Amino acid sequence: MNINKNYFDLKESYLFAKVSQKIREYKAQNPNNEIISLGVGDVTIPLAPKIVAAMSKAVLEMGAADTFHGYGDYEGYLFLRQAVCGYYAGKGVRLSDDEVFISDGAKSDLGNILDIFSEDNTVLIPDPVYPVYVDTNIMAGRRIEYMDGNLENCFLPMPNAGTKANIIYLCSPNNPTGAVYNKEQLSQWVKYALENDAVILFDGAYEAFIQDGGLPSSIYQIDGAKKCAVEFCSLSKTAGFTGTRCGYTVVPRELERGGASLNKLWLRRQSTKFNGVPYIVQRGAEAVFTGEGLSQIKRDIAYYLENARIIADALTELGIWFAGGRNSPYIWLKCPDNMLSWEFFDFLLERANVAGTPGSGFGSNGEGFFRLTAFGSCENISEAMRRFKTALD
Amino acid sequence: MNINKNYFDLKESYLFAKVSQKIREYKAQNPNNEIISLGVGDVTIPLAPKIVAAMSKAVLEMGAADTFHGYGDYEGYLFLRQAVCGYYAGKGVRLSDDEVFISDGAKSDLGNILDIFSEDNTVLIPDPVYPVYVDTNIMAGRRIEYMDGNLENCFLPMPNAGTKANIIYLCSPNNPTGAVYNKEQLSQWVKYALENDAVILFDGAYEAFIQDGGLPSSIYQIDGAKKCAVEFCSLSKTAGFTGTRCGYTVVPRELERGGASLNKLWLRRQSTKFNGVPYIVQRGAEAVFTGEGLSQIKRDIAYYLENARIIADALTELGIWFAGGRNSPYIWLKCPDNMLSWEFFDFLLERANVAGTPGSGFGSNGEGFFRLTAFGSCENISEAMRRFKTALD
Repeated sequence: MNINKNYFDLKESYLFAKVSQKIREYKAQNPNNEIISLGVGDVTIPLAPKIVAAMSKAVLEMGAADTFHGYGDYEGYLFLRQAVCGYYAGKGVRLSDDEVFISDGAKSDLGNILDIFSEDNTVLIPDPVYPVYVDTNIMAGRRIEYMDGNLENCFLPMPNAGTKANIIYLCSPNNPTGAVYNKEQLSQWVKYALENDAVILFDGAYEAFIQDGGLPSSIYQIDGAKKCAVEFCSLSKTAGFTGTRCGYTVVPRELERGGASLNKLWLRRQSTKFNGVPYIVQRGAEAVFTGEGLSQIKRDIAYYLENARIIADALTELGIWFAGGRNSPYIWLKCPDNMLSWEFFDFLLERANVAGTPGSGFGSNGEGFFRLTAFGSCENISEAMRRFKTALD
Repeated sequence: MNINKNYFDLKESYLFAKVSQKIREYKAQNPNNEIISLGVGDVTIPLAPKIVAAMSKAVLEMGAADTFHGYGDYEGYLFLRQAVCGYYAGKGVRLSDDEVFISDGAKSDLGNILDIFSEDNTVLIPDPVYPVYVDTNIMAGRRIEYMDGNLENCFLPMPNAGTKANIIYLCSPNNPTGAVYNKEQLSQWVKYALENDAVILFDGAYEAFIQDGGLPSSIYQIDGAKKCAVEFCSLSKTAGFTGTRCGYTVVPRELERGGASLNKLWLRRQSTKFNGVPYIVQRGAEAVFTGEGLSQIKRDIAYYLENARIIADALTELGIWFAGGRNSPYIWLKCPDNMLSWEFFDFLLERANVAGTPGSGFGSNGEGFFRLTAFGSCENISEAMRRFKTALD
């Protein structure tokens, strides 16, 4: 019996554990100080009333013989796939319902999609990055190339003709940096992928935060993308579903590699290793895409974006460089006085009783940077930024 | 860009598609004949009141700021893992809560667990079999050895000293045959696994159907099993969760291979590629394991088992050999008059207007056999067996 030895190449992820531990220690020494956390990327506003009503009804349906639901389709109920198609139509993207796969979240599918690709492919991953892209590929033993996000490119790395890669991860709006690719930039990525026979795995988990109409909220708004990109979306941040678990993955029918349809390969993967998302949750997700549902979730997103504006305004006032904060719930800032990421973490915790996430935890290019999130209450965030300013004064 | 070429080695699964098509064609030609299906392995009784109440409450919690839940633990909420430990304690099996991983169903985990094993392992799979064991290993390019289930061993294959395998699939009560290993037989498998440094993947999805107190309903009731077995369970058939999606996987802390803890490897896999089961569903699952919940689901299982008894009695009366039907919702019968599986399918559909599943669809040893399921209404099943007897008279 041999285990998968690639697991030994994984780094233990101490980032959030270390953040929690440092906060605990500080609290133990300073029991009267109230700490405000702008560290965790988790939503705080409860599910919208339209979603709650839909799920309440669905639970009762599951308890009655006439309306009970057993196994659903592996790829999700048609009612939800059609609702997703309607949402895309609103972005000017036409999808057919068999191009949409309902998932239990973008994270699962971003990892599981790798099953359909050979292990000898090279993957291209931005640094800094959401750690799941790296770890899932290490587990499969794939060769990883990194592309640098930095001050020069505003943490939006662009294709380099000298780099040959088969699988490319893009996340826009980005976690952790909050940076958003514009159409011209995404067009260059699509062109690169088509020229290199590569596939883009486009993580659009934060698309609902985009407010500037000129910015693309789906890669399929770029010509040619259906021939080179899979798109992963989630209701986690869009509609507060981090604990409710529902997302969707788009695999266009036009997307073929090595003579095979990726759409069919993915359906085969899902029908073999997945049994679909709970009926109750799919009814809740369907409610998100109704007129009433969309207006309710837009109100919640506006609340988080107002929080982001408060953070951004404070940083602007202090003359601190940052990305994000406008079309994203994340603010990625350059640590003042050239502090290192963990130095600034300690400084902020001790001087302002505010916790964030050290950028170095997202990759080597994150050193010297710091992530704040706009989740939480407006009162707490305003208070946090007041303390932040005082500490740096 | 290379895709995973192992996918080309998969056989398209035409079994249930072909069954549906034949039924459709027959109906088109005989629009007045009412067909009773004993073919599909899906539950029909709605969720029990205790479960519905728990999920209704949880939905409302998700809609209120004070009780909202964001991300949960990758491995499931402690309240549910402790409830599962309590259920195992009732079987005389002591587990700690960090040995239990909450899943969205046994099928997902049975496929995904393979991530932690090297691809150069040989797997041992019974024939006939639940097709997922075979397909998930073909996808990874693993070498598969089959072990024969047949009339001689009552479809309960036993270890063969000459066979060297690293990963062994056992399913008891079995899908599709309904056969159940006794303690002596499972002890032999545990002994074989320990001697060969192999790991047993024990699919216990139908454990709740076991009524004979002498039969093991968990492999951990066998001494030594914690050193060689992972157990997969599901609430799909236990509590009617096929459309609600919740199961649990047990990876004992004692289980090590190649110096690594499989428990830790599995936690690493899940925390990287999975984000947990919906809070609402976990509250529903917790309700299953309460006194009231258990008594309600036992009533439903008793209903299905009574259906199975009606089928078994009819077959006994007709002198037809069968397995299952006592501690399982499945009845696996030898086709009368030495008919082939599909021949008998046509015979039963045309003469009795009853549909089942041809055994040959579950592997080459299934040829000449046929699966009936006890899901459905007692009235329909009684009527089906009346017609069955008339057709064979």
